[in-house]
Amino acid sequence: MQKIEPKAAALAERYGSDAIPAAGPWNEVVASLLTHRSVRGYVPTPVPKGTLETMIAAAQSAATSSNLQTWSVVAVNDPATRAEFAKIANNQQHIVECPVFLAFCADISRNERMAAVEGTKLEALPYVETFLVAAIDAALAAQNAVVAAESLGLSTVYIGAMRNNVQRVAELLALPPGVVCVFGLCVGYPKPGAESSVKPRLAQPAILFHERYDASRDEAHRKAYDAALSRYSKAHEMSQYTWTERVLNRMGPIKSMSGRDKLKAALQALGFRLD
Amino acid sequence: MQKIEPKAAALAERYGSDAIPAAGPWNEVVASLLTHRSVRGYVPTPVPKGTLETMIAAAQSAATSSNLQTWSVVAVNDPATRAEFAKIANNQQHIVECPVFLAFCADISRNERMAAVEGTKLEALPYVETFLVAAIDAALAAQNAVVAAESLGLSTVYIGAMRNNVQRVAELLALPPGVVCVFGLCVGYPKPGAESSVKPRLAQPAILFHERYDASRDEAHRKAYDAALSRYSKAHEMSQYTWTERVLNRMGPIKSMSGRDKLKAALQALGFRLD
Repeated sequence: MQKIEPKAAALAERYGSDAIPAAGPWNEVVASLLTHRSVRGYVPTPVPKGTLETMIAAAQSAATSSNLQTWSVVAVNDPATRAEFAKIANNQQHIVECPVFLAFCADISRNERMAAVEGTKLEALPYVETFLVAAIDAALAAQNAVVAAESLGLSTVYIGAMRNNVQRVAELLALPPGVVCVFGLCVGYPKPGAESSVKPRLAQPAILFHERYDASRDEAHRKAYDAALSRYSKAHEMSQYTWTERVLNRMGPIKSMSGRDKLKAALQALGFRLD
Repeated sequence: MQKIEPKAAALAERYGSDAIPAAGPWNEVVASLLTHRSVRGYVPTPVPKGTLETMIAAAQSAATSSNLQTWSVVAVNDPATRAEFAKIANNQQHIVECPVFLAFCADISRNERMAAVEGTKLEALPYVETFLVAAIDAALAAQNAVVAAESLGLSTVYIGAMRNNVQRVAELLALPPGVVCVFGLCVGYPKPGAESSVKPRLAQPAILFHERYDASRDEAHRKAYDAALSRYSKAHEMSQYTWTERVLNRMGPIKSMSGRDKLKAALQALGFRLD
């Protein structure tokens, strides 16, 4: 009985009590993953010595495509740089506040430098595929860093808005050609009131299919999830909204992209040809 | 003393004994992340009931950009489909063998269907940015699934070679426009002899920078890592090789891309305009 309760409670928080999936094996690690919340407000308390190195050891332990290791990370403390990042990211003040801020980068420059020294050329470099490998490598690494940080009692939030102006971010971090910051990550201890609740997600059958893709129940899942997110947002956030409202606001008008509609040209300027 | 030992040993395995980073806090979760190994051979033993649902609950608990949830996953058991995937992936037989095979997809079609029902248009859909968000969402989710699986005593390996022919994969999975399989994932129990050792990575200072990017010690890191990987491959794999040899083989000739040099056109054919 005591073992069942936390699992059922965790699943109910993540999916709503009317959409609990038939999850099987469970342990402390899974329980910790289920309780993830993004936190957007930090106290200045520093993290324990060596925390960054522990997180990066976890990050480097993630799989990396063909062991190419096409990613890098820049830890940024300088307040002026942090302030500029916050401005680029539509004034997200947690970028300034958090004790650890990491700029995760897709990085094909290391491999390119190696080839230059060896007097050869890497024909794969200019392709969309290679940029994608590097971005996915960075994401797998970052998620391991997040899991490690959260297991140590820290909170995190990804900053996709670094992509609002990747060229300015590259200047600030002195990134060579072939390196681009694909997202940032804040790490630290939550401000009072900033630790949100677990946000419900779409029911599992909306995103998990068997053998073939099946959108036939999409509308039913969406209606149920609109209701769940409406209840959640009313209880926990400033205003009440449905998932549909959120998605239409976020992806509808081009201006909601905050400049990221120009990402392709910016990537090309930074040395990713995207052939 | 007993607490120090496993940490030092784990770091020495991951970095080689001459490049141990000054990691700080440590726990069972971090220890589990550090021991990740990709496994390329599985016994047919099924996974416990509900394991897939547990893994996907972990996956859905990862952060997702603006809660857009632009990813999906297809669990594939059909032997004929698995066999075709293995062929696409240059005959990786573990795709056929493993008890659980997951095709992780970047998916902007769910949002598009919503907008169609609501009688509006999502202007953000055709951009590189939106494809990147979806691919990163899929990667964060997949990594949580991997962490959950490994914590439950299972092994995994990512299959990037699904991208050798994303159009054929899309046909086999009946993916609608706006969905592409960005990688696969094998999950199961290792065949005798298939459980490899922890593979060393580049030293932390080769990928972790402070304040600004700094490639000035690149060559020293590469030489040390070439030696470490040469020792590792001699001890654990069929042939002995350096990191430099591996990277030059993998990224040098265009034919090493196994068709992925055509990924851009394939993505566009699948409904990602990449503007």
